[in-house]
Amino acid sequence: MSRILYELVGASPEIRFSPHCWKTRMALAHKGLAARTQPWRFMDKAALAFSGQDKVPVLIDGEQVIHDSWQIACHLENRYPDAPSLFAPGGAGRAAAQEAMPLVRFINAWVDTHLIPAALPLFLMDIHACLDGESQAYFRQSREQRFGRTLEAVGADEAGHRERLAHVLTPLRLMLKQQPCLAGQTPGYADYAVFGVFMWCRVVSTVELVAPDNPLHDWRERLLDAFGGLARQARRVSDPA
Amino acid sequence: MSRILYELVGASPEIRFSPHCWKTRMALAHKGLAARTQPWRFMDKAALAFSGQDKVPVLIDGEQVIHDSWQIACHLENRYPDAPSLFAPGGAGRAAAQEAMPLVRFINAWVDTHLIPAALPLFLMDIHACLDGESQAYFRQSREQRFGRTLEAVGADEAGHRERLAHVLTPLRLMLKQQPCLAGQTPGYADYAVFGVFMWCRVVSTVELVAPDNPLHDWRERLLDAFGGLARQARRVSDPA
Repeated sequence: MSRILYELVGASPEIRFSPHCWKTRMALAHKGLAARTQPWRFMDKAALAFSGQDKVPVLIDGEQVIHDSWQIACHLENRYPDAPSLFAPGGAGRAAAQEAMPLVRFINAWVDTHLIPAALPLFLMDIHACLDGESQAYFRQSREQRFGRTLEAVGADEAGHRERLAHVLTPLRLMLKQQPCLAGQTPGYADYAVFGVFMWCRVVSTVELVAPDNPLHDWRERLLDAFGGLARQARRVSDPA
Repeated sequence: MSRILYELVGASPEIRFSPHCWKTRMALAHKGLAARTQPWRFMDKAALAFSGQDKVPVLIDGEQVIHDSWQIACHLENRYPDAPSLFAPGGAGRAAAQEAMPLVRFINAWVDTHLIPAALPLFLMDIHACLDGESQAYFRQSREQRFGRTLEAVGADEAGHRERLAHVLTPLRLMLKQQPCLAGQTPGYADYAVFGVFMWCRVVSTVELVAPDNPLHDWRERLLDAFGGLARQARRVSDPA
């Protein structure tokens, strides 16, 4: 069966930085499913017309086309119920995954509405820098419209952004003192939803989102090593050419 | 078996407003467990000495003494496994509850570190007003020290507080468009953790935290009606004497 994942890339097609695409990459790996990457850039709207919308990730899974990282996670969980569960990774079975799904949906929504906006200003200019010229113009125009300020103004006040990010991450920091992963003993989709934000930053930037003594630091290191180091091996802008 | 719940009260012992105590009241009701209320006020530190600390809720459950609303929830889930599950209320069983627990712990930590601070300024002065004189002095002194400002200064800028609360509630609002409860089809401890904040406000204040067209409004109404209207019948400061 052919599986194709449309993923956002920078000027280099090896620079895959979208947090939402990283959620999906980790989810596929968790399920033990291979997928070929189809690089996609902000202006390639026509290339996604087949999906009925204009954002990535889009997964072609055999005869099915699914867009939106959350919908893809639900699709993978339903279509591959015998592979390790994304929502109940401890192995308690399908009913447990059904029960946990709404809670994971909340955490995913929290990532999208709170963690992503809190983290973004710290490496916004690094995202801009990794893009091709046409994407840079689109990125600047669309984000400046959303924020009502220039990218440079959004990125200013690093100390303030760090303080806000630390506040947003507080419940994660507290719980990772009690358990190794957000999902419990082993990682699940709740972890990948958060980890996507760390990969977003790591691929484009050398900024560190958490200090080494933060439990989130060790948690991130473990996820970088998961699935044979899938995430750790991902190409970064800072890698030697 | 005797079960006693130490709960924070205002000048009137019928005014039970603590969000954490409400989490526990709803959890007990969910498990179908009765408990006698022992009213407690901020200054009664000595009355809690038997628990080894100085905060409520404290539950005496037969020979066991448990403090901290999260620890009480875990205790109830473990000690009464055959009663409806708090963590997996859909009925998928004990393994499902084990799997969901870490996710509920995150949501509970998010409530404590984000939702509670965002909601509090909107009815801070109403809390102050419901207390006895000695508790008022303690409340003012301890909270002004925590905030570094007077209570009145914290409560000012209502429009700003409403905007921040709406932002904090965004992931809940989005998911309650998709499903009736945070825990899925029926409420669980994740719901009670959030609902405690709404009861905290409702008991002391006539302030509305969400507009009628917000999905959180209907969700709150359903929880007010749960368990025979346990929460709806709770005495409010605004009730006629």
